[in-house]
Amino acid sequence: MRWLEAAAEEILKGAKEAINQLDLEEVKKMIQMILDAREKKIFVVGLGRSGFVGRAFALRLMNLGFHVYFLGETITPAATEEDLIIVISGSGTTKLAVTASRTAKEIGAKVIAVTSYPDSPVGRTADHIVFVGGRTKIGWPKKKDYLARQIFGERETLTPLGSIFENNAMIFLDSLVVELMHRLGKTEEEMRKLHATIE
Amino acid sequence: MRWLEAAAEEILKGAKEAINQLDLEEVKKMIQMILDAREKKIFVVGLGRSGFVGRAFALRLMNLGFHVYFLGETITPAATEEDLIIVISGSGTTKLAVTASRTAKEIGAKVIAVTSYPDSPVGRTADHIVFVGGRTKIGWPKKKDYLARQIFGERETLTPLGSIFENNAMIFLDSLVVELMHRLGKTEEEMRKLHATIE
Amino acid sequence: MRWLEAAAEEILKGAKEAINQLDLEEVKKMIQMILDAREKKIFVVGLGRSGFVGRAFALRLMNLGFHVYFLGETITPAATEEDLIIVISGSGTTKLAVTASRTAKEIGAKVIAVTSYPDSPVGRTADHIVFVGGRTKIGWPKKKDYLARQIFGERETLTPLGSIFENNAMIFLDSLVVELMHRLGKTEEEMRKLHATIE
Amino acid sequence: MRWLEAAAEEILKGAKEAINQLDLEEVKKMIQMILDAREKKIFVVGLGRSGFVGRAFALRLMNLGFHVYFLGETITPAATEEDLIIVISGSGTTKLAVTASRTAKEIGAKVIAVTSYPDSPVGRTADHIVFVGGRTKIGWPKKKDYLARQIFGERETLTPLGSIFENNAMIFLDSLVVELMHRLGKTEEEMRKLHATIE
Repeated sequence: MRWLEAAAEEILKGAKEAINQLDLEEVKKMIQMILDAREKKIFVVGLGRSGFVGRAFALRLMNLGFHVYFLGETITPAATEEDLIIVISGSGTTKLAVTASRTAKEIGAKVIAVTSYPDSPVGRTADHIVFVGGRTKIGWPKKKDYLARQIFGERETLTPLGSIFENNAMIFLDSLVVELMHRLGKTEEEMRKLHATIE
Repeated sequence: MRWLEAAAEEILKGAKEAINQLDLEEVKKMIQMILDAREKKIFVVGLGRSGFVGRAFALRLMNLGFHVYFLGETITPAATEEDLIIVISGSGTTKLAVTASRTAKEIGAKVIAVTSYPDSPVGRTADHIVFVGGRTKIGWPKKKDYLARQIFGERETLTPLGSIFENNAMIFLDSLVVELMHRLGKTEEEMRKLHATIE
Repeated sequence: MRWLEAAAEEILKGAKEAINQLDLEEVKKMIQMILDAREKKIFVVGLGRSGFVGRAFALRLMNLGFHVYFLGETITPAATEEDLIIVISGSGTTKLAVTASRTAKEIGAKVIAVTSYPDSPVGRTADHIVFVGGRTKIGWPKKKDYLARQIFGERETLTPLGSIFENNAMIFLDSLVVELMHRLGKTEEEMRKLHATIE
Repeated sequence: MRWLEAAAEEILKGAKEAINQLDLEEVKKMIQMILDAREKKIFVVGLGRSGFVGRAFALRLMNLGFHVYFLGETITPAATEEDLIIVISGSGTTKLAVTASRTAKEIGAKVIAVTSYPDSPVGRTADHIVFVGGRTKIGWPKKKDYLARQIFGERETLTPLGSIFENNAMIFLDSLVVELMHRLGKTEEEMRKLHATIE
């Protein structure tokens, strides 16, 4: 079980590092854009494992009372220029994510990219970028290469594919939800009341 | 290609028959319950192929401006006693559909079952039933056995599993949407404006 | 309830017409391509309501023993040049469907388009097209304009958005499944054995 | 932004704690059961946010070459007594998860529960339980109450609803994937080859 233990340690270290590396100005602006969309619609976009992180985040925004949708699900209304699109994509190159963010821009909606590659197709389309580090399916983000090697060293191959970005993004977004919750003055009890009861 | 042609003919005949057999009083009450839920939430429930028919119906209710959700998707808020649950289940026995409709009843929400088996677990839980005929995965609904044999005769095995119910349900629900559209005075143009634009 | 009845009649008429207009040579080739993919992977692609029709078709291909996947679901393995992609898109213009079919072509996979618009972006990308008529979200397919007006006349606005294409596609694909079932010598019993048991 | 920072710290602390508290014998048996299912089918079950964690895990099992499915998605074949069901449920009480695990047991399949509540309906149904700590939507698991208060103290309300369990489960399962990867002698390159290429 040494691989499991080493991997868990690596994931936790990587997550801590990613949280420390967050640019709080970037995060602050993202929070403001979300709060500004309170009376509008928010669309969360993500494919593969980033999609699951995106869905988990969308669910929490729903608990907070936002009008939120996850692209690709049945109930996805029309986006307008007043709405906000949040794209979660480690590599920033997943084709359907690129298509979605470009379409959102054409409509005139605001786009936030949560990515490890600010200079990717998704990143370049976005109005605002929040850099979340971590290895993605296309490798380590360039700017962080040196650090990555320092932290992960010879054990770099331990975490398969994009695991690290997705874990980091999930922890970041869950923390963001707590910040939003306090800004909006919501209690857990109020959030629970908006949570699914039939399933 | 004779199987394809024979099957298509059979499906179309079966659909026509199912539409003719609709109890218009049952349908009228379903329409009223949906209109009454205009300011509330509507949850559509269905598993497997009935789930796809349910999602297609939910999407149209969204186009009509209802606050509608499909159970199992990310954005599924809490149901309350004021809300309406519409369960699509040919056999009325699919376990997750039964669980969902019972949970909805416990909460005090209204439940409509669209089914070929009024006397099934889903049917017995529902406040209101709309009978839609057609072979389901558990066979022909009893009350319609004789007719089924007459229509389908020796070709009964042509349509695999539950195809017929689902086709019939889809045509019924799409027609229901047209009725709702006219009752609500909506135009196609208005509906299109509420349709997904990013995908 | 006259709208409901008129709409159901229209949908049924339209479906019958669409089935009659199927080019059996196109269908024959589609069947052969599917049978040729028996040991490969088949990916079904569709967005919105076409996606639900696509999922219902994918589920039946699974019942028939094919290695089939629906794009956008969790379990979507890598496509290779040996695989088959079936895109369901009435208008042939839905952006994510266009992106998916182009990506499939880049990989070298075979693409079948089921569409009302052979000359659409999806249609032009495809190796093979099966024309299925019916009004889509962008209106009536040009080649069929005259006929459409004849059939639907002043009642054209009855069926909202793309209903007709999707109903027609569902009936066509369900019939195709019956043809495949007989070609493969499968019985309903065998198909049922491959059907979900946990849900 | 102090809430965000405090929450991130709390989530990371909680995750570290949960990993340290893993019973390695429980984990070892889970790994063996997964390896034993190599030629069988594996079904992952989860609702809400646990469902997204489950999907992310299922996707990795697919990358490793397992025949894996996520309950509720289109392509969900029949389960048999030879198959393995892995239920992710923090509280162990989510109704649809309970229904699914009971149905799996009736069929004779093996059930693993990943949960914070071994004595929950899901836990009691399972053949094998892996305890993963963390607050769930129904609160803190009893056995860990004291510790929880120690770690989280007055800041207990910081992480809304079940965030902690899901983060912990995701990190645990990602680490498990690394262990499986090494046990199976898979390289990242091989895993990437099985990853989605069309999306």
